[in-house]
Amino acid sequence: MRCGGGRGGSGAGSVAVVRVNTTVPYDVHVGPGVLGEAGRILSAAGASPANRAGRSSGAGRSHVIVTNPTVAAHWLDGLEAGLGGQRPLPDRHTAKIGDGERYKTLETASCLYDFLIDRRCSRDTVILSLGGGVVSDVAGFVAATYMRGVPVVHFPTTLLAQVDASVGGKVAVDHPRGKNLIGAFHQPRAVVCDVAVLATLTEDVFREGLAEAAKTALISGEDMLTQMETNTSSLARRDPAALRELVTACVRVKAGLVEQDEHDTGPRMALNLGHTFGHAIEAADGFETVRHGAAVSVGMCVAARLAELCAAAPPALTLRTERLLSGLGLPVRLSQLPGALRASDITPHLRQDKKRLDGKQRYVLARGPGDITVASGIAENLVHAALTWAEGDDRR
Amino acid sequence: MRCGGGRGGSGAGSVAVVRVNTTVPYDVHVGPGVLGEAGRILSAAGASPANRAGRSSGAGRSHVIVTNPTVAAHWLDGLEAGLGGQRPLPDRHTAKIGDGERYKTLETASCLYDFLIDRRCSRDTVILSLGGGVVSDVAGFVAATYMRGVPVVHFPTTLLAQVDASVGGKVAVDHPRGKNLIGAFHQPRAVVCDVAVLATLTEDVFREGLAEAAKTALISGEDMLTQMETNTSSLARRDPAALRELVTACVRVKAGLVEQDEHDTGPRMALNLGHTFGHAIEAADGFETVRHGAAVSVGMCVAARLAELCAAAPPALTLRTERLLSGLGLPVRLSQLPGALRASDITPHLRQDKKRLDGKQRYVLARGPGDITVASGIAENLVHAALTWAEGDDRR
Repeated sequence: MRCGGGRGGSGAGSVAVVRVNTTVPYDVHVGPGVLGEAGRILSAAGASPANRAGRSSGAGRSHVIVTNPTVAAHWLDGLEAGLGGQRPLPDRHTAKIGDGERYKTLETASCLYDFLIDRRCSRDTVILSLGGGVVSDVAGFVAATYMRGVPVVHFPTTLLAQVDASVGGKVAVDHPRGKNLIGAFHQPRAVVCDVAVLATLTEDVFREGLAEAAKTALISGEDMLTQMETNTSSLARRDPAALRELVTACVRVKAGLVEQDEHDTGPRMALNLGHTFGHAIEAADGFETVRHGAAVSVGMCVAARLAELCAAAPPALTLRTERLLSGLGLPVRLSQLPGALRASDITPHLRQDKKRLDGKQRYVLARGPGDITVASGIAENLVHAALTWAEGDDRR
Repeated sequence: MRCGGGRGGSGAGSVAVVRVNTTVPYDVHVGPGVLGEAGRILSAAGASPANRAGRSSGAGRSHVIVTNPTVAAHWLDGLEAGLGGQRPLPDRHTAKIGDGERYKTLETASCLYDFLIDRRCSRDTVILSLGGGVVSDVAGFVAATYMRGVPVVHFPTTLLAQVDASVGGKVAVDHPRGKNLIGAFHQPRAVVCDVAVLATLTEDVFREGLAEAAKTALISGEDMLTQMETNTSSLARRDPAALRELVTACVRVKAGLVEQDEHDTGPRMALNLGHTFGHAIEAADGFETVRHGAAVSVGMCVAARLAELCAAAPPALTLRTERLLSGLGLPVRLSQLPGALRASDITPHLRQDKKRLDGKQRYVLARGPGDITVASGIAENLVHAALTWAEGDDRR
C-alpha cells in the first residue's frame, strides 16, 4: 500500500490516492468531485503495466456502465461527463439492474451476460460499476466470469461501498440460503470514491456505511478509533473533508489487509468482525428489511459481548463499541431492528457461514482496538448467551 | 513443466507424472489403472505447499464427486475403491448431472450450488470431477465460484478431457449464444488420467479426443506429428501403451503453454488452432448433433486451407492435416458432418468468438508443424473461400 497526493493540497477538494498492491496493483482515488476525472483515471489505469501488452488503452475500449435507476437518476450524467473528455469517444452502453439486495442474484448476472453478448462485447470490454455494494458485487462477478474475466472499474456511490465493498476484489451474488455464496476474487483496475455523491443518500443508507467504518476503526487500532469517536458529529452532517479522511483511512486499512491476504485465508478475516452474526441476522430476516450495516452494527455488539463472555476482552470494549455505534445513529440491539428477531431465529443461520472450516464455526473477535483474533470451538451456550443479551433493551 | 516417473518402469502399466507449474503447481498422473490410486494422489495433493497452512490435508476433507449417470455406471465404483483406502473415510457425496453438452449451463451450475449448500459444504470441501469435458468444465466452474473458490481434482474419463479439457484451469459453462462464454481460470489441485477407462468409450467419443491430440501434435512440431502419424493404427485400437504415450505427450505440450500463459492472453492461443471455426460450426449446429472433436477436425482443415489461401502455409500442410485426421477416422469436410452445414451458416457465428479483440476477428493458423501464428485482419472473402472449400467433397 502506498498513499500519495492527487491534485495536491490537503483541503476538502483534494484527491487522495491509495495504491493497493495486489497481484495486479490498482489505485483508489478518494475525494469530492473525482467522478469528473473518470476519463483521466481510466486512461491511466488502462496504460498501467497491468494492461495487456500491445493492446489498446482503457481509453479506446468499449465501456459498459452497470448501475441502477436510482443511482442513474443522480449520477449517470456526472460519470458520462467525466468520461466524455476522451477522444475518440468509446463505444459505451449502460445496463440498469434492479435497486436492492434482492437483485444480487445469479438471475441478474445472467441478464447482464445477455446484455454483454447482445452488444458483442469482447474480452477487452471494460465494465464500470456505478452504485452501491449490490451493483459492484454483481457487476464485479459478471466481470470475473464473462469470457473468463474482463476488467472492471468501480465508482461506488454509497459510503458502505466506498469503505468496503468496492476495494479488495471480493465479488459475489447471493443464494436464497446465504449471502455471497457464489463469487470470485477479481481485483478492479481502479476504484473512484467521490465523497460528494454521498450527499444524496438517505439517512439509513448513509449510516450503514458508518457501521463498516466503525468496524474498520476498531480493527485499525486506537488512533483511528479515537479519531472517529472525535469526529462523530462532523461525520453525521456529512462534512466532505471528514468523509474524505474517513474513506481514505478505511481504504488504507483494507488495502493493507488485502495485500497481506489477497484470497481471504488469514489476516483479512479481521474484516469479518461482526459479519458472522450480521450475515446470520440478515438471513434470519430473509434479506428483507434489515440493512446490511444495521445487521453488522448489532453483529459487532454481539461479537464484543461474546469476546467479553469468553474473557477475551474487557467489558469496557463492549461499552465503547456500543457508544460509538449509538453515537453514529446505529442500532446496537436486536430489538432496535425491524422484525423483532430473537436469538433462536439467528442461531440456525450461523451454520452456513463461509468461515466454517472442517465443520467448525469460527468467530472474529476484538480483544482490543487493533487486536483481532479468530476463535473456533467456542461453546454454543456462550454464543447463545451473547445473542440473548442482544435481544434485550438493557443498554448501558 | 517437469516430467517424472511414477510407479517406475516404462511398461504399459506404469504411471507418468507431469508437473504443471502454474501459480499453484499441480501434477497430472497418466497411466492405466491410476484411478485406483486416487486416495494416495489426493493425500499428496492435499499435503502439498498449496494446501492452506494449518488446515487438514486432502484426506480429511469432505469430498463431492460430480459425475453423470453414464460415467457413474462404469467408473464410480472404481473411483470410490481408489478413495476408500483412506482412513478415516471422508465425508463423501455424489452429484450427478445430465450427460451431454446441453447440460453445460448456468442452470446445472445452479443445481450444484444447491447440492453443496444442502450438504453444508464449506470452503474446504474438495470437488472431484469424474467425467468428460462437460463434467470437468461445470464442476470446475462451480469449484471456482462456490464460496469464491474451493479445490477441484479432475478424473477425466474421455480422451478429449484427458488431452485437453482437464488440464490448464479453463472452466466454463455455455450461453445459448456461444460456448464457454461464462467461465473462469481455476487450476485443479491434481489431474488423474486413467487411460484404461477409455476402453468403454463409443467410437465417436473416443475419436474426438484424437482430433484434439492431432491438433496438439501439429502445435508441438515435427517429432510429435510424425509419432502420431506412425501410431495411427495402435491408437485406433486403443492400445494402452500408445494411449499413455499420447496423453502424456499432449499434457506436456499443454503444460508448457499454460505455464507460459496461465490466463490465455498470448502463447496459449496456439491451443485454439481449429477452434474458432470449430466453435462456429457447433454454434451453427445449435450444439445439437455435431461433436466438438468432429467440429474441431473440420475446423483444423478450414484453418489449414485459410493459411494456404493467405500464403502463410504450403498446400502440403493442408494435405498432411487432412490425411492424419482422415486416418484417425475423423471428418475433414462440412459435408461429412450431420446437418449439411454451408459456409453461410457458419460465418455469422464467427463474430461471437472470445478471441475477438477490439472488434477484429483473429485466427490461429499453422505455418508448419510447431509454427503457430495468430493473424488478424484477414479479408472476409478468404475466410469465406476456405469455408466454401470445406463444403465440398473434393478431398485430395
